[in-house]
Amino acid sequence: MMSGQRLQGCRSLHVNEDSGRFLLLAVLILLYLLCGAAVFSAIERPSELRAHGRWNRTLHNFSDAFNVSLKDLNSFLREYESAVAAGIRADALRPRWDFTGAFYFVGTVVSTIGFGMTTPVTVAGKVFLIFYGLLGCAATILFFNLFLERIITLLAVVMKAFRLRRLRTSGLLPPGICQDFAASSLPGWKPSVYHVMLILGLSAIIISCCASAMYTPVEGWAYLDSLYFCFVTFSTIGFGDLVSSQNEAYSYQGLYRLANFFFILTGVCCIYSLFNVISIVIKQVLNWMLGKMSCLCCQRCKANAFLGRRNAIRPGSRLRQGRFGRPPDAEGSDTEGRRLSGEMISMRDLTSSNKISLAIMQKQLSETANGYPRTICGSSRHNGFSGGVGALGIMNNRLAETSDTR
Amino acid sequence: MMSGQRLQGCRSLHVNEDSGRFLLLAVLILLYLLCGAAVFSAIERPSELRAHGRWNRTLHNFSDAFNVSLKDLNSFLREYESAVAAGIRADALRPRWDFTGAFYFVGTVVSTIGFGMTTPVTVAGKVFLIFYGLLGCAATILFFNLFLERIITLLAVVMKAFRLRRLRTSGLLPPGICQDFAASSLPGWKPSVYHVMLILGLSAIIISCCASAMYTPVEGWAYLDSLYFCFVTFSTIGFGDLVSSQNEAYSYQGLYRLANFFFILTGVCCIYSLFNVISIVIKQVLNWMLGKMSCLCCQRCKANAFLGRRNAIRPGSRLRQGRFGRPPDAEGSDTEGRRLSGEMISMRDLTSSNKISLAIMQKQLSETANGYPRTICGSSRHNGFSGGVGALGIMNNRLAETSDTR
Repeated sequence: MMSGQRLQGCRSLHVNEDSGRFLLLAVLILLYLLCGAAVFSAIERPSELRAHGRWNRTLHNFSDAFNVSLKDLNSFLREYESAVAAGIRADALRPRWDFTGAFYFVGTVVSTIGFGMTTPVTVAGKVFLIFYGLLGCAATILFFNLFLERIITLLAVVMKAFRLRRLRTSGLLPPGICQDFAASSLPGWKPSVYHVMLILGLSAIIISCCASAMYTPVEGWAYLDSLYFCFVTFSTIGFGDLVSSQNEAYSYQGLYRLANFFFILTGVCCIYSLFNVISIVIKQVLNWMLGKMSCLCCQRCKANAFLGRRNAIRPGSRLRQGRFGRPPDAEGSDTEGRRLSGEMISMRDLTSSNKISLAIMQKQLSETANGYPRTICGSSRHNGFSGGVGALGIMNNRLAETSDTR
Repeated sequence: MMSGQRLQGCRSLHVNEDSGRFLLLAVLILLYLLCGAAVFSAIERPSELRAHGRWNRTLHNFSDAFNVSLKDLNSFLREYESAVAAGIRADALRPRWDFTGAFYFVGTVVSTIGFGMTTPVTVAGKVFLIFYGLLGCAATILFFNLFLERIITLLAVVMKAFRLRRLRTSGLLPPGICQDFAASSLPGWKPSVYHVMLILGLSAIIISCCASAMYTPVEGWAYLDSLYFCFVTFSTIGFGDLVSSQNEAYSYQGLYRLANFFFILTGVCCIYSLFNVISIVIKQVLNWMLGKMSCLCCQRCKANAFLGRRNAIRPGSRLRQGRFGRPPDAEGSDTEGRRLSGEMISMRDLTSSNKISLAIMQKQLSETANGYPRTICGSSRHNGFSGGVGALGIMNNRLAETSDTR
């Protein structure tokens, strides 16, 4: 119960930090969008104007050459646009809705790439798409997460050997831990977020370069366009201005489609993982920024802590310890803290496979601490708490207790 | 050290379960794709053929009416396609790359919607997009995760009141926990995954209906098309066959663009959260399926457990208890287990804000248990373990210990 009472004051700090991080990120993203819009507008606007001029010349030349009124031409082009929506191009394309084309389509749906080179036009297709995508996208997100977790496990296999040898040689660890090391299997070992980001980034670059080396000759794109297509596809943005494997016939068609599927699958998994790892680093940067600007926040939190809560002194005092009990080299300790949290976050974020077990661990913690497993189970059968009460109580007590050491 | 040695045998079971879940999901997704391809092909193929026939008639009629050779028409249409890629349509559209258009574009990039109604055509634009999207998409993923965590907190505020009252009235909890309840603040309370899924689904439907009610009159789409657009956009699929706010002029243009931005933002956040919650439920279904087909797996694990590992008996025996110590109504206990894990998973997955604190809690756990915080910190400064060693060691010992009770 001690911890249960202690956390009252820090809870407000905790909530404030979360909201602050959220708002700070929102503001930064908005600024990022504004800057990006300015840059893209500056880069692309001239070429757009040139394209308009070029097209107007083409249109008038055609209308003069074949004395077709612009009105007729526009109505013709409008019909062509509706035909384009149905997957028709001036050059013959592969059929949109034969089985392979439909398979490509559903692949772009569940992966949320959504090129748009194929879109349902019938009412039944649109309705079915909504329900089909709802389940498919969720399953794919889970697949990506499990893939990420598998990748981390794989990296752990490789890096554990290096680390362990370096540790043993440097003799930094007391024999007790070394035994623990030797005894602990792979899941007991997780690489850091920075190593994972580096490795994922390198593999993403390698995959993109290999895929581009395939697309450039087969699709006849420039190599840079192929790289652009790879990023747009692997990041599931999927503009659809460039779409692979759309022509009516290729040499080695089956092989090319297989390689295309393979590259897109691995690339999407890799970039998705990379995005998640980068987002962790961004979160650390946000925490660091919040820590920098948190003096004002601290005052408010302490004020809150004293607002008529029991034991409000404790968190405040611990807060003061946490804030001002630091060594003078605040910068070093700060970065150190970031790396610490970075390591731990990476492990929390990148091991999505242990959730159930972790939950059970929480339950055991709570039961051993409270000693009423029966009660929990009994109540869970009726109101669906399922042991979350005591477990989460303890969890959050501890979390709030330590949240000011962030 | 006890737990450190105990987990040897169960670790293999653990890894097997993870790999099995991953493979099972991959197989199920593949089947899902095949079925979806068959259904879409059956639904859309006829309309595609009709569209081809219609377009061919239009093409020939036009070529006859204005005696333009099909070759000239096709080259003309090819030029029109390149003009379309630059954002030109028969009907006048808003400028693509003025500031507002570029802002819309970068919004579709960082959210990975990627309509493709606007795409960079210059080399500089394509290169910049790659680096811009890399950071932007990661930041947006973090934003979505923090939004999800905020939503859960909000739901916790609401649902805690209901639950607490119902508990008190039903008197299921011993007074100790009731006090803990009253004492514990919001983060000590998390709604279950099913409630969150229900609420997110309802809010997604409400947002989509409201947005469609706006799009239908303003864009002149059918209401169903508007709903289809909402799903395709909010799920970040973003085909681009329907794109809002593309005409040159609307009545109340500024207001409409603002509402469009607002709806897309809230809708994407909502559907993203919904996908993640559904993916949790899918994971539970996978675990349940694995539990059903795990007898064979158990044999293998026990075999592994006996393969020359120290204390390999222990996990095996605990495994046997876990498997055959169940009440005869295996079905009931199984579903119960699922609900348990469901509740706990939901809390683990849906509180992404406590990762750092949780990590620190792990560190404390390990330090209190091992009693060598100094050593950890010392080593962390040199090799970046940062306390993950003992902490994760203990974490995974406990996880592996309980992994057979899944």
